[in-house]
Amino acid sequence: MIKVTILGVSSAKPTIGRHQSSQVVNVNEQYFLVDAGENAQRQMAQAGISPLKIRKVFISHLHGDHIFGLFPLLSTMNLLGRRTALEVYGPKNLGPMLDWYRTNFEVQTDFEVAFHEVDTTKYQKIFENRTMEVWSLPLRHQLPCTGYIFREKQKEKNVDKLAIEKYSLSIKDVLKAKQGEDILLPSGEVLKNESITFIKELPRSYAYVSDTSRSMMVARRISNVSVVYHEATYTQEFQKIARKRGHSSALDAAQVAQRAGAERLYIGHFSSRYKDLTPLLEEAREFFPNCQLAKELETFTV
Amino acid sequence: MIKVTILGVSSAKPTIGRHQSSQVVNVNEQYFLVDAGENAQRQMAQAGISPLKIRKVFISHLHGDHIFGLFPLLSTMNLLGRRTALEVYGPKNLGPMLDWYRTNFEVQTDFEVAFHEVDTTKYQKIFENRTMEVWSLPLRHQLPCTGYIFREKQKEKNVDKLAIEKYSLSIKDVLKAKQGEDILLPSGEVLKNESITFIKELPRSYAYVSDTSRSMMVARRISNVSVVYHEATYTQEFQKIARKRGHSSALDAAQVAQRAGAERLYIGHFSSRYKDLTPLLEEAREFFPNCQLAKELETFTV
Repeated sequence: MIKVTILGVSSAKPTIGRHQSSQVVNVNEQYFLVDAGENAQRQMAQAGISPLKIRKVFISHLHGDHIFGLFPLLSTMNLLGRRTALEVYGPKNLGPMLDWYRTNFEVQTDFEVAFHEVDTTKYQKIFENRTMEVWSLPLRHQLPCTGYIFREKQKEKNVDKLAIEKYSLSIKDVLKAKQGEDILLPSGEVLKNESITFIKELPRSYAYVSDTSRSMMVARRISNVSVVYHEATYTQEFQKIARKRGHSSALDAAQVAQRAGAERLYIGHFSSRYKDLTPLLEEAREFFPNCQLAKELETFTV
Repeated sequence: MIKVTILGVSSAKPTIGRHQSSQVVNVNEQYFLVDAGENAQRQMAQAGISPLKIRKVFISHLHGDHIFGLFPLLSTMNLLGRRTALEVYGPKNLGPMLDWYRTNFEVQTDFEVAFHEVDTTKYQKIFENRTMEVWSLPLRHQLPCTGYIFREKQKEKNVDKLAIEKYSLSIKDVLKAKQGEDILLPSGEVLKNESITFIKELPRSYAYVSDTSRSMMVARRISNVSVVYHEATYTQEFQKIARKRGHSSALDAAQVAQRAGAERLYIGHFSSRYKDLTPLLEEAREFFPNCQLAKELETFTV
């Protein structure tokens, strides 16, 4: 199960009610921080998520509004007595930034901060474990920028209990069947895997797409992703500014989600010019009805 | 008139309800930011103070909890279209930090950031204009650290209207009297300055004392300051930890304020271990009754 807790939905200039980009993605109780705008740590606290739970941090690009909250968060992790290494993924220059931070602000953090450079020009798997994968997703912004896709892996198949009884399957047979193999019975009969197994839950996936101007390449790469978060800094009225600054309109976000065949779209990264966000939501919904505004401190299930 | 708006009262580890150190000191409508913990800019917005109003920033020392909010604030000033130079005062290494910030986070700010190094070992005047002065105040912390004292200058004397009429004083005479001179009348009579002038308001002063272990040298140097803000990270119970970490207890703060002969004391920089701050207030008040807890988003007049 993938759950996403939104910490910030503002673009570069925060407002009283809206923080800069940051969210926590929870994939089967593995917690990942995606971008870290200023005050991300207090937002996490408000959302009831301890910084010690965070296994990895994924940074999209090196504009301050996506990383100003990272350094204070590292300090707080240290003060909380963290010992587990923290793995930080992001564009090349984030490495020297982290070194600089450690030289200038703290004598030494008591936990390792391991940096993994992400090639922002490549769509590729950058991490996987037994249950999930993370992919980089090149975006079109003012400077090297990558989105991230979180994909659950297909869980093992379930074996039909009635079949186990009927054919007196051994534990070995059951394990084989879970892996998708056919079963040869002592009688010589072959049980086709499909006839004795079923899939309980299909794997889910989530794409984080911020910051970028509209890209149909992005849409292709996230095709069949279950849920998409896409930036929507402006309404169409400011389409020109959006393009110039490497941002999207709400309509852009909707078009990408529709082309990708997503089930649901969340929009965020709103310009401070919008006190009321309804125009952004309405613009996106007209094209892609299953759209929601990302809301700070709210959690949605993918 | 000096007014102080508190933005943060937490020590290094912020809590949900408390931000790291930061406050705005307003001396006769000249606005100064003193320290800039994370989220200082949103706290300023909450308090209704535009970042464009800030003339100068004074940083006490280079622990992250006192400067993490500075860089995002500079970004926001830029996004707001600031053109006026910002003068930043602080310990030596703050200069390279500001340079690093400008190289890494923004192509270029459209306003000048002028850095003034403050010698944290010297008690001296670091800025003055027609109406006020700022002094550095060496503190005893883990690394070079300075407090700041804001002093109003004595305003011109007022000349008694009845005296002006009675002696038919010329404008020239009045201006002389305002400067404290005696007046020679055409009759040869000399009017003593004290007999025809009065002082409407005595100049006020404010000392910002954070972070430091208790220092009677500090108390001497802030003697006769009207109002003192002094850090009080712990209650006496943790006196040993306080000393070891270069911090003060509430009692320490009270003793310094009392020795300095302050009218009023505000305590802040509270450890996250205190959910309820009453014990800190009670401890300080027992020794120095005119003590208050500094409260975020509240403004007091010095």
